[in-house]
Amino acid sequence: MTDEDLGTVTTELVGHVLEITIDRQAKRNAFTPKMFAEMQAAYTRLDEEDDLWVGLVKFAGEHTTAGLDLPKFFGDMQRTEASDEKTNEVVDIFALKRRCSKPIVMAVQGITFTIGLEMMLAADISIAADDCRFCQMEPKRGLAVFAGGNFRQVERAGWGNAMYHLLRADEFGAERALQLGYVQEVLPAGEHVERARVIAQEIAANAPLAIQYIKKANLAYIQHGEEAAIAMIPEMRRVTSSSEDAKEGMASFVERRAAVFTGK
Amino acid sequence: MTDEDLGTVTTELVGHVLEITIDRQAKRNAFTPKMFAEMQAAYTRLDEEDDLWVGLVKFAGEHTTAGLDLPKFFGDMQRTEASDEKTNEVVDIFALKRRCSKPIVMAVQGITFTIGLEMMLAADISIAADDCRFCQMEPKRGLAVFAGGNFRQVERAGWGNAMYHLLRADEFGAERALQLGYVQEVLPAGEHVERARVIAQEIAANAPLAIQYIKKANLAYIQHGEEAAIAMIPEMRRVTSSSEDAKEGMASFVERRAAVFTGK
Amino acid sequence: MTDEDLGTVTTELVGHVLEITIDRQAKRNAFTPKMFAEMQAAYTRLDEEDDLWVGLVKFAGEHTTAGLDLPKFFGDMQRTEASDEKTNEVVDIFALKRRCSKPIVMAVQGITFTIGLEMMLAADISIAADDCRFCQMEPKRGLAVFAGGNFRQVERAGWGNAMYHLLRADEFGAERALQLGYVQEVLPAGEHVERARVIAQEIAANAPLAIQYIKKANLAYIQHGEEAAIAMIPEMRRVTSSSEDAKEGMASFVERRAAVFTGK
Repeated sequence: MTDEDLGTVTTELVGHVLEITIDRQAKRNAFTPKMFAEMQAAYTRLDEEDDLWVGLVKFAGEHTTAGLDLPKFFGDMQRTEASDEKTNEVVDIFALKRRCSKPIVMAVQGITFTIGLEMMLAADISIAADDCRFCQMEPKRGLAVFAGGNFRQVERAGWGNAMYHLLRADEFGAERALQLGYVQEVLPAGEHVERARVIAQEIAANAPLAIQYIKKANLAYIQHGEEAAIAMIPEMRRVTSSSEDAKEGMASFVERRAAVFTGK
Repeated sequence: MTDEDLGTVTTELVGHVLEITIDRQAKRNAFTPKMFAEMQAAYTRLDEEDDLWVGLVKFAGEHTTAGLDLPKFFGDMQRTEASDEKTNEVVDIFALKRRCSKPIVMAVQGITFTIGLEMMLAADISIAADDCRFCQMEPKRGLAVFAGGNFRQVERAGWGNAMYHLLRADEFGAERALQLGYVQEVLPAGEHVERARVIAQEIAANAPLAIQYIKKANLAYIQHGEEAAIAMIPEMRRVTSSSEDAKEGMASFVERRAAVFTGK
Repeated sequence: MTDEDLGTVTTELVGHVLEITIDRQAKRNAFTPKMFAEMQAAYTRLDEEDDLWVGLVKFAGEHTTAGLDLPKFFGDMQRTEASDEKTNEVVDIFALKRRCSKPIVMAVQGITFTIGLEMMLAADISIAADDCRFCQMEPKRGLAVFAGGNFRQVERAGWGNAMYHLLRADEFGAERALQLGYVQEVLPAGEHVERARVIAQEIAANAPLAIQYIKKANLAYIQHGEEAAIAMIPEMRRVTSSSEDAKEGMASFVERRAAVFTGK
């Protein structure tokens, strides 16, 4: 640990999957401004580089995160206040502003409080260790929920179930999160990261253009409703069906082999 | 029972929780205009008085309600027709017009038909006795569903599951309601009211301003979509983070004690 | 089998239920343009004829459908491209354009790939055989999802669960579909069609006008949001409560007998 361990976010490319690792284990991965900036940079790189097709986000150590390391946020709420005016120059890891156009798979374990739960709900697929502890505890500390964790619980679990957790600010576990659709699989702690990796690679084996259109159309649905999603169909049909990957898809089907896509 | 028992709605303040009891047991709590007016008045009081932070709604006797006591509605459908033009002077217990800004926990048991199910789905958290009998039976009597019970089933359970019950107008039990997210917990009849009370007090222990913003932001999400909910974040951050309760929340965290909030 | 078996869609009226059977068993019900046209015609008839109150859709043989019989679509994607501009002269079996105003119950079994899953999600209630194999496999072949199968999975199962299947394009079974709300009941293969028939007749025993308003109001909710659904309440109350079926409903209630509705 350095004089002041402000955490690091490292990336590694495995095939077409960008693996992103958050590490500040000594502080249970409590987030500093440095970690936010580096995680945004990683998401932005994933979004912008053509050869990156899927993101895999994982957290070093026993816990996802204990939340914000508040004293490290100079000016505290003023700083995060400023984040409301942030531009679209970088991808927002909470998916409230600019969103990542590529799928993000997240592996979570142990303490997954406040922003941890919110980053998870802003991702696309989450794989949980069986020791997860989820809590949107802000109302216990006098604060509302600022990073999407409120309405994303409604979207996934419906009004009553979301209110049950949001208004009580209680702690709940991996099996409950699975039941609510907040996570998609629960595995013994230690096995969950490898499972998330398998899923990320499974997605990366599909045609990237098709995958990105599916995410784009569903974001349109969530943000602007059914008509917006339906309006996207002609474009997504025209672009994907005239792609090189569609030809490869058809060829691989005829030749009874797995397709090898290029993203073109 | 008086010459004509038209039912009563009584209220009792327990800490910051307004307990609201509906009572017309001899008629299985079939609703009269008097009961509607008194229940609206109770919801309106909960909404308007600063010291009331959470509502707990419970029903005397073995049943939630058998529904409307139709003969008591003079002019019948004309009367309820008129309710479509009702002003926002009082809170709407079906949450179709003016809504209560404070959380409402509801305890239900036995027969919970038509408006009973609709009042429940218009509340925020529902605790069910294991003897609950839910039924939106209107189409069996020639009528559509008038008080939000249709789209709130879609919101919570998704299209297919909602249609499965709405189109058949079948009766279903507490475990099914739990599975669909219509209720949040099921307990042996008799224990469910006390459990609802515990949950109401649990919510009342959290910062009221934060709780009200969470409900408000999620209502914006349900009514106007994701962008509307995101647009509320700066205000809810500014107001709650500069509140006295936020200071108390931080102090209690540092001092490792439960916070004592004032709603300021 | 004829020289070229292009499949048939047959209809049979059972009471007020229009039973629609898709048959091209030799090709696992792979869809040809002829089958689409005939199925659209059947849905349009269901929509337009006053005496038809509920549709029951079933598939001959062991499978729902293997998907599109692509070589049969002359000009292939150009043809389906053209479908984006199709008029509202006929009902769209994928419910992206003109929708059927009457409820549709669908029985599915065995292979239920691509458009099979999408037709099912565009229906109202689905009853599955326990041997179902669901797969939205397009991204494995270079294509996005064109007929509503993407956002309808989000609507029913929430973001994470929908992404889990859409991005992986994996195959899943009947129990998983039940858990996600994609189907409403699972029965041993062979018993599921009869069960779907019972449900269709159960719906047909309810007041048709009420049933159609319930579907209409919920479509308004899905397409235009909560305010649109609430705005429909006065009309649906006025029309259904002044209908002959409402009188019959009340009379049958007083006389403690099942109502016999006429749709008026």
